[in-house]
Amino acid sequence: MRMTRYFLPTLREDQASAEIISHKLLLRGGFIRKVASGIYNFLPIGFRALKKIENIVRAEMDRAGALEILMPMVQPAELWMETGRWQAYGKELLRFKDRKEHDFCLGPTHEEVITDLVRKEVRSYRDLPLILYQIAPKFRDEIRPRFGLMRAREFIMKDAYSFDADEEGLEKSYQLMYETYERIFKNCGLKFRAVEAHTGAIGGDVSHEFMVLAETGEDTLAICSACGYASNVELTPAILGEKYQGEPKKPLEKVYTPGVRSAKDVADYLGLPVSKITKTLIYIVEEKEPVAVVLRGDHEVNEVKLEKILSFRAFRMAREDEILKLIGAHPGFLGPKGLKMKVIADKALEGYPNFVIGANEDEYHYLNANLGETFVPDLIADVRKACPGDLCPRCGAPLDFTKGIEVGHIFKLGTKYSSVMKATFLDKDGKEKPFIMGCYGIGVSRVLSATVEQNHDENGIIFPWQIAPFHIALISLDKTLKEEAEKIYHKLQSHYEVLFDDRDERPGVKFKDMDLVGIPLQVILGKSYKEKGEIEIKIRKNGKRAYTKLDQLEETIEKIKEELLFERI
Amino acid sequence: MRMTRYFLPTLREDQASAEIISHKLLLRGGFIRKVASGIYNFLPIGFRALKKIENIVRAEMDRAGALEILMPMVQPAELWMETGRWQAYGKELLRFKDRKEHDFCLGPTHEEVITDLVRKEVRSYRDLPLILYQIAPKFRDEIRPRFGLMRAREFIMKDAYSFDADEEGLEKSYQLMYETYERIFKNCGLKFRAVEAHTGAIGGDVSHEFMVLAETGEDTLAICSACGYASNVELTPAILGEKYQGEPKKPLEKVYTPGVRSAKDVADYLGLPVSKITKTLIYIVEEKEPVAVVLRGDHEVNEVKLEKILSFRAFRMAREDEILKLIGAHPGFLGPKGLKMKVIADKALEGYPNFVIGANEDEYHYLNANLGETFVPDLIADVRKACPGDLCPRCGAPLDFTKGIEVGHIFKLGTKYSSVMKATFLDKDGKEKPFIMGCYGIGVSRVLSATVEQNHDENGIIFPWQIAPFHIALISLDKTLKEEAEKIYHKLQSHYEVLFDDRDERPGVKFKDMDLVGIPLQVILGKSYKEKGEIEIKIRKNGKRAYTKLDQLEETIEKIKEELLFERI
Repeated sequence: MRMTRYFLPTLREDQASAEIISHKLLLRGGFIRKVASGIYNFLPIGFRALKKIENIVRAEMDRAGALEILMPMVQPAELWMETGRWQAYGKELLRFKDRKEHDFCLGPTHEEVITDLVRKEVRSYRDLPLILYQIAPKFRDEIRPRFGLMRAREFIMKDAYSFDADEEGLEKSYQLMYETYERIFKNCGLKFRAVEAHTGAIGGDVSHEFMVLAETGEDTLAICSACGYASNVELTPAILGEKYQGEPKKPLEKVYTPGVRSAKDVADYLGLPVSKITKTLIYIVEEKEPVAVVLRGDHEVNEVKLEKILSFRAFRMAREDEILKLIGAHPGFLGPKGLKMKVIADKALEGYPNFVIGANEDEYHYLNANLGETFVPDLIADVRKACPGDLCPRCGAPLDFTKGIEVGHIFKLGTKYSSVMKATFLDKDGKEKPFIMGCYGIGVSRVLSATVEQNHDENGIIFPWQIAPFHIALISLDKTLKEEAEKIYHKLQSHYEVLFDDRDERPGVKFKDMDLVGIPLQVILGKSYKEKGEIEIKIRKNGKRAYTKLDQLEETIEKIKEELLFERI
Repeated sequence: MRMTRYFLPTLREDQASAEIISHKLLLRGGFIRKVASGIYNFLPIGFRALKKIENIVRAEMDRAGALEILMPMVQPAELWMETGRWQAYGKELLRFKDRKEHDFCLGPTHEEVITDLVRKEVRSYRDLPLILYQIAPKFRDEIRPRFGLMRAREFIMKDAYSFDADEEGLEKSYQLMYETYERIFKNCGLKFRAVEAHTGAIGGDVSHEFMVLAETGEDTLAICSACGYASNVELTPAILGEKYQGEPKKPLEKVYTPGVRSAKDVADYLGLPVSKITKTLIYIVEEKEPVAVVLRGDHEVNEVKLEKILSFRAFRMAREDEILKLIGAHPGFLGPKGLKMKVIADKALEGYPNFVIGANEDEYHYLNANLGETFVPDLIADVRKACPGDLCPRCGAPLDFTKGIEVGHIFKLGTKYSSVMKATFLDKDGKEKPFIMGCYGIGVSRVLSATVEQNHDENGIIFPWQIAPFHIALISLDKTLKEEAEKIYHKLQSHYEVLFDDRDERPGVKFKDMDLVGIPLQVILGKSYKEKGEIEIKIRKNGKRAYTKLDQLEETIEKIKEELLFERI
């Protein structure tokens, strides 16, 4: 592709609206443009990168025997009413009426549509297993769309659905998709990790997320290098590594703690470590029942765990005015002693002697609180996020923590959808049984963002070879080399995808643009070519340069490509 | 692909809901399934065929230098308000609010979005010409979705938009797209015709439709075999071939015509040809002004022409109760004489002596009416559809008429969108000028329907090789040949897309399914292979059979493929 015939509107400055690096660089590099909040145009170079990812996904799904279909974006309410999600799904499900006043929604996911299709068309166990998938736009009316493609409202997703006759079949399909996902992200040239995950709104019992590793990731992963255990910290059982000292219990003592509210402030004021302070948080369950959660000051509540403890009832944090009314003290001075509501104590408080709690009276705390004595909680449970110092729930070795971006999520659904939708088949024994289902998603457009988050430097994007929109940026720095450049362009085009900067621009502008859009190799015709007949090859990833004669150009490129693909550089 | 691992739910019976052959066969063949009115799932074989068409479209668009992008399906109202189409576009524009109560619509077309993109990103004539395109789902909330993919609400479209600095540039882009479309439909293996067309809701001055020729087409094409003129009959100027005889004018005579209402009934009753009878139709313009149109009984009103005559004001046919109130007679007895409203007479009535008109009194007509004497119309204009007997408006030779299905439509938009949206660039002379635009659509999913309408027989679909979901259906009729069949399957797969019917089914079932889904060649292992080592090849298109030894199988297939591609068979 010639730059003079391409549409690549790069920008010099970051856009004020872009908060994270991938959003900034995809805008600056001319990959995407905003149409409305969370809604984007993919420009030619962005579309090319997207297609690369899509093609890798498609190739591996096909290889796994999954069959590609296409389902509509506009879905009738009737199907969603059957599963109860018409009511249960939040406002992310964009609902509307057509001209005949029938209810429809924009598909955020397609369990209902696919289950309806399969229940009508598949009759017998002989037709199973069946895995169907599509790569298509989806719409989720996010309350706060942001970060560009990372949390967009309209986005491209690969969603697959498996149908099996029994649990054993589901296990096989799930394992097949797990391995397929590993191949997909490997083939994209990404560093990633599969982790055990929370099933959320899709449901089912077991799920794994595929995380692209990046410091800027929103998710925290708990990883055990000893046994290979890995989970999203939302799900990780918190097992304290610390052994509490057998310190004798001291008598409870009320102390004056004026104006110190946060656990850290209290700790500093009292001259104690933060771990010795507890915090008490008040939640309102189903808009009526207050519940208190007590945990160490250096720990954090895990709301996914709390949701399970609360039997999946809706809950939220209490507002300050509600707390004042309920307890008569401000947040910061709350404690479990004498609290007239259900109290959940985090497991890490078990056997922990002499900790600090709020006195439920402004400006006061108690020293030397002890679980079971100072207060008796209604429940002692694991309600916190695992954190450094905690142990692997599988093998007991210390856990590592790292950040990731969720790009894929696979679920064992079981009969969650098939039983309510009466999607059944005739099994070997002649009995009607509900399909055992799984579902498997990849945020295709999100992979593009995650790629950039993982692979960039101060000059721009650094695409892995596998999903780079072009492999080679051909840059000629001298008008007198025009003819030579044309020849090399034609030569390279037969083996590589080449973006040829044939503009009348200063070298600085050309290099800046090519660095920004992240093409793996820059083939440069400049001084060294004119003087010594040597073509310069710059490797975007590490800035290293190689020089080669024209007749060895392709050989040299092949060598560098190999190094890149096998990550030796 | 093995049938036992494929998802191809064929049906024995036509679905009651399917009115036209393509809808019937695409349902029966397991290509599509309905999700809601005008909304479909593409099943694996349907998706494959769709992809074939999409890939041909993409290859030719890329070859023309058009750049692929992807725009969202959900579009903000603001852009549509700028062009006035938020108000002007009918209910086919599905409008809705998001969770923040902002107005959006589902894109039925993308002129607004693309013009907004280009006005923000393209500054200079140096960046022109620019042709951008996408292949993506669209939504039009049709009042009466029907005929399966032919008039669906959600469908796949290729839409392209050209931006030029001047009219000359537009002419070039338009010509380029015209030729690209010719190549696309040729490469799809379809018989088609480009015709001059009505610009409709998209607007602009010049447009051409690309019509797949099929007896079942909804559109009528007027074609001149002498000079090559071709137009949609909506647009064809009607030039009467008939020369009226210089018959002396006779005196007007009121006759009793009890109970005869249609032109044909009146003609039969009076013993005159239908052409001698006129009909008078009453339209209501903008819900207030009645307008009468008078034309020959054997001619039909062309509402596209009428719309132009009425300066594009909204109009509809009057209801019977309105006619009774306005005129005091029932439809069937109406005539232009003494009518207290604007009367438009069709041009074909000029110089036509002694025709019959209704008397505006139930059960009565007049004989021997004459234009200019019996009544003086407010306007004499070409308001009818051209029909057999009419002459070519370009060369005067008699026109031929044929039926077609619109699959593509290209428009010269000029500055229709760019001027209202203030989409300008800096021209060579340093002046701001609006982009000169064109737009170019192909109904990708509709092409699939049109292909079936054009290519089928009583047994099912007959796909052109180029867009067939599979090239070869491999059918083994004997379990003892299983190993042989497997070998041939592997052999053929390296060159062709093969659907291998490896099911335990009766031969009849296998042949029926493969005929139905329209795969061009059936490679059959049966009696002749067992007895003489000869593989049978059946050509789906004509039912002819060839026999070949295994070692010449591919050679034979190649020969037949050539014959098919060059339409020698």
